[in-house]
Amino acid sequence: MTPSYGGGGGKPLALTMGEPAGVGGEITLKAWLRRREGVPPFFVVDDVKRLEELAGKLGLEVTVAAIGAPEEATAVFLSKLPVWPLSMAVKARPGELNPDNAAAVRSSIEIAVAFVRSGAASAVVTNPIHKQCMYEAGFNFPGHTEFLADLAGISTPPVMMLLCPELRVAPVTIHVSLNEAVRSLTAEAIVTMAVIVEAALRRDFSIAEPRLAVAGLNPHAGEGGAMGDEEIKIIGPAVVELQRLGVKAFGPEPPDTLFDARARKTYDAVICMYHDQALIPIKTIAFDHAVNVTLGLPFVRTSPDHGTALNIAGFGKADETSLIAALKLAADMAHHRAVND
Amino acid sequence: MTPSYGGGGGKPLALTMGEPAGVGGEITLKAWLRRREGVPPFFVVDDVKRLEELAGKLGLEVTVAAIGAPEEATAVFLSKLPVWPLSMAVKARPGELNPDNAAAVRSSIEIAVAFVRSGAASAVVTNPIHKQCMYEAGFNFPGHTEFLADLAGISTPPVMMLLCPELRVAPVTIHVSLNEAVRSLTAEAIVTMAVIVEAALRRDFSIAEPRLAVAGLNPHAGEGGAMGDEEIKIIGPAVVELQRLGVKAFGPEPPDTLFDARARKTYDAVICMYHDQALIPIKTIAFDHAVNVTLGLPFVRTSPDHGTALNIAGFGKADETSLIAALKLAADMAHHRAVND
Repeated sequence: MTPSYGGGGGKPLALTMGEPAGVGGEITLKAWLRRREGVPPFFVVDDVKRLEELAGKLGLEVTVAAIGAPEEATAVFLSKLPVWPLSMAVKARPGELNPDNAAAVRSSIEIAVAFVRSGAASAVVTNPIHKQCMYEAGFNFPGHTEFLADLAGISTPPVMMLLCPELRVAPVTIHVSLNEAVRSLTAEAIVTMAVIVEAALRRDFSIAEPRLAVAGLNPHAGEGGAMGDEEIKIIGPAVVELQRLGVKAFGPEPPDTLFDARARKTYDAVICMYHDQALIPIKTIAFDHAVNVTLGLPFVRTSPDHGTALNIAGFGKADETSLIAALKLAADMAHHRAVND
Repeated sequence: MTPSYGGGGGKPLALTMGEPAGVGGEITLKAWLRRREGVPPFFVVDDVKRLEELAGKLGLEVTVAAIGAPEEATAVFLSKLPVWPLSMAVKARPGELNPDNAAAVRSSIEIAVAFVRSGAASAVVTNPIHKQCMYEAGFNFPGHTEFLADLAGISTPPVMMLLCPELRVAPVTIHVSLNEAVRSLTAEAIVTMAVIVEAALRRDFSIAEPRLAVAGLNPHAGEGGAMGDEEIKIIGPAVVELQRLGVKAFGPEPPDTLFDARARKTYDAVICMYHDQALIPIKTIAFDHAVNVTLGLPFVRTSPDHGTALNIAGFGKADETSLIAALKLAADMAHHRAVND
């Protein structure tokens, strides 16, 4: 089953602008320049003039085309970068955050989601936003993912999965202190998210019988209670419950021997107990091509696995590798979903 | 400065027997069979008859030679496996723990340490022991390392460092639950162990100006206190104190971006805040050739980075790669120490 990019009838991907002071514009231009390297057709919801000026400043030969409907994007894509036009309150300057543009950042996400929900786009890919800057402008969601969940009208918290060709990981807790991650761990949270991960592996990755490794929390998975009892009280029961639900889950596994090349052959994804248990191995393996995927939304959403990188924005140094991987993955997932639904 | 194995005047390494029901004997025999692949001369403190029988059972062409003094080992090594003879209380059977042999396991360690302390051996390499079995026989140290520290008569807890050619990591806390690791973290512990690591990198690795990356504890190193304040209250001050002491330390660094190939070029070792923060990246990179080193002892001690593997003992399946790496590293370190002292 080879993915023909633009799954869902040749529909383009909708890419958001992200923080305009960050590297989003630059990596978008660079990703489009590599469009003949298997990058699936996309359009970006952004300011036409700013992209043109940015391309000029960086010496990138990009011709921008404002489109009047998403379906124009696929035909335009090979010759011009299709842009769903948006205006910003003030001129964006690389490296200089300005909360006055937060409304445009937000609109870009809302428009991209509207198009994917209406069926005009196949999936959403998001450029990184700067949360602090958004908060200052009144944005009241913990992050991108929660905003997308709200736009999608779902109440179950979506799941963050990080992946690269070698590994898929999903942390049960994300942006909380390690202390809170340990204290707040519950069997219910593990089961809920593992079920979402398993469904997504079937639907969006066409894995017929997904195998989930469930990591322990403590060194050596606690060694029978000698070093922590969360494996006995929380994680073990969660694995039993998952098996009862028909999920091919196993564990709790000692976390340190779970991520080498040999171990990776035994599962399709790892359910991790905290942020760095998932992020350390994947970034060690794939520091520039890991992709962030949100599971449990009614549409496919991916994003590059890096931030706004304000410190290097505007210098032409930003690396488009992860964005390209995010675009390709979004198209793959949309294709699988269209086939499987 | 190419290491001439047997640093310290051609002295051999002293290898301990380890748990006789585990894979120690088997990997010792296999390591000796690869003696022409740069394995430095060693002698093992073990039971001659059991090694002969094990070799016969596994079909390994090993001739064993009891030696009367460590200095005989180097000359014997190319033709025979030198053994400092030891007797066991009962016949050891692969996979079957017997606390009656715990005294021999302990003696093997004591004898190896005696030889390295007297100067007859250049370093100690230890085969894995089975702690539970030792406890049943009255062994009252938390583990190997604490026993070695006691034999060496030192009071500062030694530091465990894991290393492979690509990475060196040292965790501040080791075999405690993650909850306890978070709660027990102190700036003093970080500084004490980082100073030991830095001194060892100079003395045993001949690194003139060791650079230490100090990892944060929380996701993104806490993001300025948004996700935990240990970076602000504990780890940051520890880094400042290390710098005051003249140590080239930097951090706290976001843990997840610290271990990729590019990041690894910026330091010589990482001071990690808990077991799996150190063990996950190194085992992801080097699942079969990582070595465990104990720093802060008055002698060089290394060990393979795996356990007794009772489940595969006696079948000829155990992999000697990590033991060979431990032997080579011990000889290298002893050589550097001899040159630098």
